[in-house]
Amino acid sequence: MTAWDALGGYLRETQIVGSIQSTLYWDQNTCMPRAGAAWRGEQLTLLARQLHSRQSANEYADLIAAARQEWSEHASAPDHAERGRNLDLLEQDLGRQQALDPALVAALATAKSEGYNRWQQARQASDFQLFAPALQTMVDLRKEQARQFNEPRSCWETLAQPFEPDLSLARLNEVFAPLRQQLPELVARSTTAPRPRMANWDLPDSEQKLLCHELLSSWGRSDTISAVARSPHPFSITLGPSDYRITTRVVSGQPLSCFLATAHEWGHSLYEQGLPDQSHQWFAWPLGQATSMAVHESQSLFWENRVARSRAFSQAWWSRFREVGAPLGCAEDLWTAMNPLAPGLNRVEADELSYGLHILIRTDLEIALLEQGLAVEDLPSEWNRRYRESLGVTPDNDAEGCLQDVHWSEGLFGYFPSYLLGHLISAQLSEAMTAEIGSPEEHVAAGDVTPLLAWLREHVHPLGRAMNAEQLVQRISGRPLDSAPFLTYLEGKLAALSAL
Amino acid sequence: MTAWDALGGYLRETQIVGSIQSTLYWDQNTCMPRAGAAWRGEQLTLLARQLHSRQSANEYADLIAAARQEWSEHASAPDHAERGRNLDLLEQDLGRQQALDPALVAALATAKSEGYNRWQQARQASDFQLFAPALQTMVDLRKEQARQFNEPRSCWETLAQPFEPDLSLARLNEVFAPLRQQLPELVARSTTAPRPRMANWDLPDSEQKLLCHELLSSWGRSDTISAVARSPHPFSITLGPSDYRITTRVVSGQPLSCFLATAHEWGHSLYEQGLPDQSHQWFAWPLGQATSMAVHESQSLFWENRVARSRAFSQAWWSRFREVGAPLGCAEDLWTAMNPLAPGLNRVEADELSYGLHILIRTDLEIALLEQGLAVEDLPSEWNRRYRESLGVTPDNDAEGCLQDVHWSEGLFGYFPSYLLGHLISAQLSEAMTAEIGSPEEHVAAGDVTPLLAWLREHVHPLGRAMNAEQLVQRISGRPLDSAPFLTYLEGKLAALSAL
Repeated sequence: MTAWDALGGYLRETQIVGSIQSTLYWDQNTCMPRAGAAWRGEQLTLLARQLHSRQSANEYADLIAAARQEWSEHASAPDHAERGRNLDLLEQDLGRQQALDPALVAALATAKSEGYNRWQQARQASDFQLFAPALQTMVDLRKEQARQFNEPRSCWETLAQPFEPDLSLARLNEVFAPLRQQLPELVARSTTAPRPRMANWDLPDSEQKLLCHELLSSWGRSDTISAVARSPHPFSITLGPSDYRITTRVVSGQPLSCFLATAHEWGHSLYEQGLPDQSHQWFAWPLGQATSMAVHESQSLFWENRVARSRAFSQAWWSRFREVGAPLGCAEDLWTAMNPLAPGLNRVEADELSYGLHILIRTDLEIALLEQGLAVEDLPSEWNRRYRESLGVTPDNDAEGCLQDVHWSEGLFGYFPSYLLGHLISAQLSEAMTAEIGSPEEHVAAGDVTPLLAWLREHVHPLGRAMNAEQLVQRISGRPLDSAPFLTYLEGKLAALSAL
Repeated sequence: MTAWDALGGYLRETQIVGSIQSTLYWDQNTCMPRAGAAWRGEQLTLLARQLHSRQSANEYADLIAAARQEWSEHASAPDHAERGRNLDLLEQDLGRQQALDPALVAALATAKSEGYNRWQQARQASDFQLFAPALQTMVDLRKEQARQFNEPRSCWETLAQPFEPDLSLARLNEVFAPLRQQLPELVARSTTAPRPRMANWDLPDSEQKLLCHELLSSWGRSDTISAVARSPHPFSITLGPSDYRITTRVVSGQPLSCFLATAHEWGHSLYEQGLPDQSHQWFAWPLGQATSMAVHESQSLFWENRVARSRAFSQAWWSRFREVGAPLGCAEDLWTAMNPLAPGLNRVEADELSYGLHILIRTDLEIALLEQGLAVEDLPSEWNRRYRESLGVTPDNDAEGCLQDVHWSEGLFGYFPSYLLGHLISAQLSEAMTAEIGSPEEHVAAGDVTPLLAWLREHVHPLGRAMNAEQLVQRISGRPLDSAPFLTYLEGKLAALSAL
């Protein structure tokens, strides 16, 4: 066996353990009764210990070193560069894993389960105090983790690396600056512009389920390789090379929430399904994996916003919605409902205009928590103050406010900006796509989205971790990541909706 | 730390790994898309290897030996006997695990996943040939496993031990002899006795789901510690000390199938929920576990047959069934539908009279496969011949015939007799219960089943693995296991139904 194959076998077994962990996570969020949480936490802690042990083992380091040696002796191999990139990433990951104390790894896994459990209870009771101790523990552990990584980056930057490789705070501020400046003005304009408003309506759970099923069928979903379930917070997860799962939820009084969440999560899944799966780029190797959460989000947002929220889509679907009970008189009624453009308290239900403000608040708050001494106990009041100032709305309680998102309960600091970067990337990639094959809207109007998927399958999905998010954008669009395409898109949408 | 506590910690971690395996099994049967099977097989194989490695490790043997030494030095401890029994069982299990070649353990885990997958395909296509090679592999591997165990028992007896500790073929034949003799005559009488028959009817999936929910609510189910899902084959499984799951299925044209399966699986779960959970008898120790599949089955059958199929139950529930659309004119209509007493092809849907014949056929066939040279390829014809002779029915195809049960696909040889032994134990324990607190029927008529559960919680559930099935029956009923109570019960039920 070559050193390369030996390393591949090792990675494959690591991937098996990782995918077991993912399966437990899936079950935790879709099936597990509440009282199962403590034991589930022990299971996840055991797997986290096993995974860290595998990923930091001397045996593993030796396998990488041998594969690197072999690689350097075969410089003329046709896939030499790709193999080198795989090794670069493995060496980087190994260095990080070896930097961590196993006790911290176990403590983090336990705190993650405990935090998730506490967050659920606190959100149900709408009482931040029930969650605060778990959040404090998580902040302390993650700070310690960043310290142990010992990288030439700030604490927040260090923790953001797994989600957004190579991201710096300086670059993030640069990219976000035009959004900080222009989004509030756009949101303000959207609330004053005269536009038709829909009266409140809803659809029964069963009809929403049916529409979601029809949507995914029309996008080619096969239940041979995928499954859909319900969870408190929609997500997409891959449990094996041919096992793709998504979840949705039905929100009372928001008849399109489940439908749009389905579109969104399926977009994530399509990216995963399109990752390269041959030879050295297979499932278990870095090049077979998603490069960043922002790129991931760009793919989910493409299907949610560029496709399902497009005017052409409403033209194709509005009568079907009416058949199952939606009080719609024309396509524009559905399009208006799909694009309410009204700032609210909830990130996941937010419209495209105000979404960025939700992210800016979270990004600023988590940097404040980790680097600027914001006390955990002050989080609710800081949260509410920023919502008031930035979006003009005030949560009635913590469940509507700082308890709405699961992320911090699981220690996911540094994750939120990826959502907004995803909007930017989605807009910039869509411009490139439009220049090449015509706009998403045109294809939706023509009744065939397969060219859209084919383009993504050709240009975006196969890259895996061959490059980071900014390099991917540069390669596909020919210019650096920029907020202009996203802002242009928002301006256009607001104008079109206002012209109804 | 005492040697006892050190051993307890080790067992607990083993239990965590085991419960991860169970969680993957749950997901495989409730959520997993078909294409996920191969990777799931690799996950389960890895866990089986880990489990076997833990359960046969020298480190583990040393922990048991140290605990045994400590135990022998503390003969006056109040729970000395229970601790000794725990150690006896651990030593027996250790001996078995150490007897196995790790390569065989891995091969069996792979064959189990592969067999299950092939069985599903074969059953769908109703083509035994698709399944035959996987079954042959399983037969060969299980024979080899029995050989490696090297116990003073026949191959089939050896494989039956995990399900029915201490069972011998001689004793099984003795207990089953009256059934072989009398069941065919009872079945024949049931088909000729003039009885009211129901026309075919059905209930929508949603209404069946609602009734099942109401049933379990009336039996005190809490969704804090339990969850219900759907699977091709109903089962009950425990995923943690406070995480109990059951599955059901809706069978078209059989409006009571889901309801009775729910009662049955919940009976299994109640047994698990009643197992002792304090100190040394906790979850991870033998005394905290179920003693045999027959005792398990006696508990599920109690709730299915003694409670849900009782006349008093139909009196209490028939109008509720009518409300959701069942074409019932009186309580006796529901009772008749609950007890069709008509021999058929399907074991799971079988009535109480003919059920035993299904088991006798399977038991004879698996003994023939393992010990008497029956060729795998001859299984369908042998199956069909025995059904014709014993039950007077002939399967139209393999799906209705020898492909109907999942068990052999997963290598579960020696399991089927436990189902019939469960009927016998259920009948004998019910007689003991009736003598003490009155009959199940009386309590159902009085509208309160809590005394029934309380009696089981006092006499049956807390025993764990303190004794085997026969000892449990002797202890509770004051006499050896016998088929007479079951046959008496059947005679009575047939007479009552015939008198309608």
